[in-house]
Amino acid sequence: MLSTIPNKVDIEDAYNRIRPYTHKTQILTSTLLNARFGANLYFKCENFQKAGSFKSRGAVNAILSLSETNSSTGVATHSSGNFAQALARAASILNIPSYIVMPENAPKVKVEAVRDYGGKITFCKPTLAAREETIKKVISNTGAFEIHPYDNYDIIAGQGTATLELCQSIQNLDIILCPVGGGGLISGTALAAYFFGNNIKVIACEPKGADDAYRSMKAGSIIPSVNPLTIADGLLTSLGKRNFPIIQEYVDDIVTVSEDAIVEAMRLIYERMKIVIEPSSAVPLAALIEDRVDVRNKNVGIIISGGNVDLAKISF
Amino acid sequence: MLSTIPNKVDIEDAYNRIRPYTHKTQILTSTLLNARFGANLYFKCENFQKAGSFKSRGAVNAILSLSETNSSTGVATHSSGNFAQALARAASILNIPSYIVMPENAPKVKVEAVRDYGGKITFCKPTLAAREETIKKVISNTGAFEIHPYDNYDIIAGQGTATLELCQSIQNLDIILCPVGGGGLISGTALAAYFFGNNIKVIACEPKGADDAYRSMKAGSIIPSVNPLTIADGLLTSLGKRNFPIIQEYVDDIVTVSEDAIVEAMRLIYERMKIVIEPSSAVPLAALIEDRVDVRNKNVGIIISGGNVDLAKISF
Repeated sequence: MLSTIPNKVDIEDAYNRIRPYTHKTQILTSTLLNARFGANLYFKCENFQKAGSFKSRGAVNAILSLSETNSSTGVATHSSGNFAQALARAASILNIPSYIVMPENAPKVKVEAVRDYGGKITFCKPTLAAREETIKKVISNTGAFEIHPYDNYDIIAGQGTATLELCQSIQNLDIILCPVGGGGLISGTALAAYFFGNNIKVIACEPKGADDAYRSMKAGSIIPSVNPLTIADGLLTSLGKRNFPIIQEYVDDIVTVSEDAIVEAMRLIYERMKIVIEPSSAVPLAALIEDRVDVRNKNVGIIISGGNVDLAKISF
Repeated sequence: MLSTIPNKVDIEDAYNRIRPYTHKTQILTSTLLNARFGANLYFKCENFQKAGSFKSRGAVNAILSLSETNSSTGVATHSSGNFAQALARAASILNIPSYIVMPENAPKVKVEAVRDYGGKITFCKPTLAAREETIKKVISNTGAFEIHPYDNYDIIAGQGTATLELCQSIQNLDIILCPVGGGGLISGTALAAYFFGNNIKVIACEPKGADDAYRSMKAGSIIPSVNPLTIADGLLTSLGKRNFPIIQEYVDDIVTVSEDAIVEAMRLIYERMKIVIEPSSAVPLAALIEDRVDVRNKNVGIIISGGNVDLAKISF
């Protein structure tokens, strides 16, 4: 278990650890989108990752990094979405129990996915206070070891492996665009780009309707996310205290995008690339649509974070 | 230009001809779907093909097989959908004009795609009579060479190359499931499975609401499609006279599926495989959902025909 910011070897170790249990995901390109934006875009498709998102990388790394003592009584977390599924699946690899605290209004499809992976769910009211109280109770009852969805160095190292793979496959990247929510993905991405890339500029992309990371970067301290409103439901959370310093040091810029641009980016990716992505994954392309980043003639990696979307709620 | 049923070398020649201008598409698998159906399913993803469907294979082969005399004045076809885009794109490779007759009610997104590829569109009333009259007029005005969307041996040989690739990658296939509309894809698939597979059973899958191929197979002669009603809008056409004898000889069985199963299969593929497909492509998996084919412990190829879908019209 890591107790400091992951270094190059930590991310390589994480990669070797997770390889047997995760996909080396495809990198897709689109002639049409390249032409439209005047750049070479490389989409790293974590929507094809196990359990449908990059979260499997961090979850598997965190689980496999536990000591026997810590893992023996199982693991616990709170998550309404992708991390819940990813941790339940990762725990099943070691055949240890996973206790997942979910808000009672979590989408049915996600609840079912957690159950399918063997997760034991405790529901709570959809408030921060209820969530923290409930997970404390679960841990005190079960002795499970808590794994935070993003404010955790093993998680960060695991999430960085997507960019390690991307840098191995595309060796002349100039820019990487990545969505930012709690900061697990962007912090791992920025570290991996620094260690495995050649002077890559990393740009965090965030919905205007949930722009706490943007405001935190400007303020120089974490500003919590209050009443965020965006279709990008994976990006509602506040930055973690382990994530923020990494973002401050290794992320080059942060840009925000409108809801219209997110929907337009989703439509472009569905229609032109024929892949199913969740709204959060469309945020980086939305930044290109709104001309927030100069990508002309550049080689640009775009992290497609996941594909777990409630199709009934999507309308184009 | 072929004047008889394609043989093994004809399909290999078609493959060499189209390789520089088409994608060797991915073959995806899903642990979850394999577990559900007790089989190893290999999805040949022509939704990732150029212009969004397998039709690019046949169109490129047909265009590149034209004599200089035939190609000099351009090509013409009638199509409301995928073949229109594919032929317009293929013609642009040779830099020759393409004249596309489309029904005036064709989806806007498809009309725009044909225009983007440089196709010259003539609209007609959405009836068979209007279509035939209009294409005659276009040909007489332009001297263009007509290329039928499926009733054409070069088209059939081209469509067979998807299965050639599938057989090269997965060498122990027992069964291939493929949708049937006009018969271009299924006839090419059946020929390629015969030439490049090892005793593969080929099963055509058709919506109950457009079961003219099923009825034709039972009757032993082509029964036209009259007022078909299905979400699978790529499968509305009647069988071609060149396609039918190939289907009779090389297709092992034909099964029909309900609309509910088609929608359920689409949902499964979107949610579990994270790919965008058109409804026609869901018909083979619908056959498994309704238990029309015994696939237990078998290696099963499934042709995903395309991904050109009007997202606004899809509701899950």
